[in-house]
Amino acid sequence: MVRFAVVGTNFITDYLLEAAKSCPDFQLMAVHSRKEARAREYAAQWGAPLWFTSLEALAACPEVDAVYIATPNFCHKEYTLQMLHAGKHVLVEKSAAANAREWQQMVDTAKERGLIVLEALRTAFNPNYARIQEALPRLGTLRRSIFSCCSYSRRYDNFKQGIIENAFIPEMANGALMDLGVYTMNFMTGLFGKPKEITASAIKLYNGLDGVGTITASYETMLVTLFYGKVAPSGNRCEIQGEDGYMTIEGLNAPSRVTITYRDGRVEELPLEDIPFRKDLSYEVQAFIDMIQKGDGSEASFNERTRISLETMDTARAQMQMHFPNDDLG
Amino acid sequence: MVRFAVVGTNFITDYLLEAAKSCPDFQLMAVHSRKEARAREYAAQWGAPLWFTSLEALAACPEVDAVYIATPNFCHKEYTLQMLHAGKHVLVEKSAAANAREWQQMVDTAKERGLIVLEALRTAFNPNYARIQEALPRLGTLRRSIFSCCSYSRRYDNFKQGIIENAFIPEMANGALMDLGVYTMNFMTGLFGKPKEITASAIKLYNGLDGVGTITASYETMLVTLFYGKVAPSGNRCEIQGEDGYMTIEGLNAPSRVTITYRDGRVEELPLEDIPFRKDLSYEVQAFIDMIQKGDGSEASFNERTRISLETMDTARAQMQMHFPNDDLG
Repeated sequence: MVRFAVVGTNFITDYLLEAAKSCPDFQLMAVHSRKEARAREYAAQWGAPLWFTSLEALAACPEVDAVYIATPNFCHKEYTLQMLHAGKHVLVEKSAAANAREWQQMVDTAKERGLIVLEALRTAFNPNYARIQEALPRLGTLRRSIFSCCSYSRRYDNFKQGIIENAFIPEMANGALMDLGVYTMNFMTGLFGKPKEITASAIKLYNGLDGVGTITASYETMLVTLFYGKVAPSGNRCEIQGEDGYMTIEGLNAPSRVTITYRDGRVEELPLEDIPFRKDLSYEVQAFIDMIQKGDGSEASFNERTRISLETMDTARAQMQMHFPNDDLG
Repeated sequence: MVRFAVVGTNFITDYLLEAAKSCPDFQLMAVHSRKEARAREYAAQWGAPLWFTSLEALAACPEVDAVYIATPNFCHKEYTLQMLHAGKHVLVEKSAAANAREWQQMVDTAKERGLIVLEALRTAFNPNYARIQEALPRLGTLRRSIFSCCSYSRRYDNFKQGIIENAFIPEMANGALMDLGVYTMNFMTGLFGKPKEITASAIKLYNGLDGVGTITASYETMLVTLFYGKVAPSGNRCEIQGEDGYMTIEGLNAPSRVTITYRDGRVEELPLEDIPFRKDLSYEVQAFIDMIQKGDGSEASFNERTRISLETMDTARAQMQMHFPNDDLG
């Protein structure tokens, strides 16, 4: 049994706790919110015996083995280090850090202390992502990939009226790249590794937040383009083009339908596991629990993917002139 | 009646002549091919009373009013100027020239002589393109567009075996950008005008030809990405994202289905004209004939679009380090 605490009590924590019910070794022990009423209420709602308004107190609690952190990106590193120093494993929401340097500190600290730190990037642990990866050789020499994660955020309605919520504050290391681009980035680095070079463009909103962005990455035989945005809806058609056929992917975050159309017109539908909406989050929780229990070092490959993603996002931000206050911190 | 000659006798000339049958004022007068047997045969096939193997002789022929040029890109300028100097109007296949400087010479020469020069860019004259343009305001503030024209060229099979046909010779100002990218480029410049800036990437094949390319253009509120390639098949899903909904376009060159999906989920299908395959080429021929007959200066806007496209392609080529011998000519 792994005894969890959750830090942050928004909708994504709801989803994760709901999905975690199917993980037999997941036990919710504690809840943290800065507001006492919220902490009490959320603990009661999810049946957590303990609640905290102080991170120090949570860190000191001997009944917590692991912490899930779902706060705004700019405090991921600080909170993670605090928990690692207290001897707790950490599952941290994407984007795992504001930049690659922060992530390196987090990984180094976890290693030093024999603990697990892992980015909660849902697709990376989804078995249907592995199915896509396995099918790639059937496409022949790869020539182009297109990964898209664009939507109209409900919070953008407020934004346009001058009500700026956390997700629309660039100083919190938020925005389209950090919030949705990270899905497309991790999808790419998981399949193809580190690109040779990238070009990045963004359209910024009035407060400097990137509303939409595009990154094109060059690999040896192929160009990969990442689309992400928070201010317009999209069909989000994703495609991988090889010389022998192209694959279309519906649902980048949680692939729900994948087909290959071969050059001769033959269409093959990939047999996917039928994973109900949001149930996919249980895979990331289970992977994290397995890493803690088995200690087989399997977090290293996922952490390397996160590192490459953040490094590439750093390069993209430099090109798009998107600087975060976190970039100036030690 | 406008009496035409065609220079170049490949499949695109076939398509054009077939489509031109529905243009009442189109009359095929002459055919040019460098090989006499081919010129004779092609003239007989299409019922042209005259055939030429010499461009000088064709230029001197008083029975020809206008010339359609469908030779490799690198000789478009030279042939066009030759015909303009002889007092003939010119419809020239895309890409109209190897670069913007060449195109400017062509337009200047036509103007000086009171003649029409026009790029045979099919989509620009397709009434369904105008339908798309008219519907754009319904999408709200535009945020992203994706235009795609990727296919697996049959000539690429030969190319891989070392048989390099004209379309795969970069020194002829050919390649993915010049052959297919130009469609996506003109689609963009026709709808949105000149971009503020662009970034361009390409994957080159062993002889330096661009096999696939990607261009991302920045406009005031929007990013536009152009996909083109000759070495892999694609679903070629095109999309225009606005804050209020997104439009999907099937068939970039000859739009066959266009839908708008609004943010509330409502789907609207645009009523398009039902234009049989390749019949769309008749619109470019008819537009050219109208320009000759009416002399209303309506070629200027199309030529400006071609100029912006070529200028932007020049910028893209510089970034992709794709230099043509034509770039060094006067």
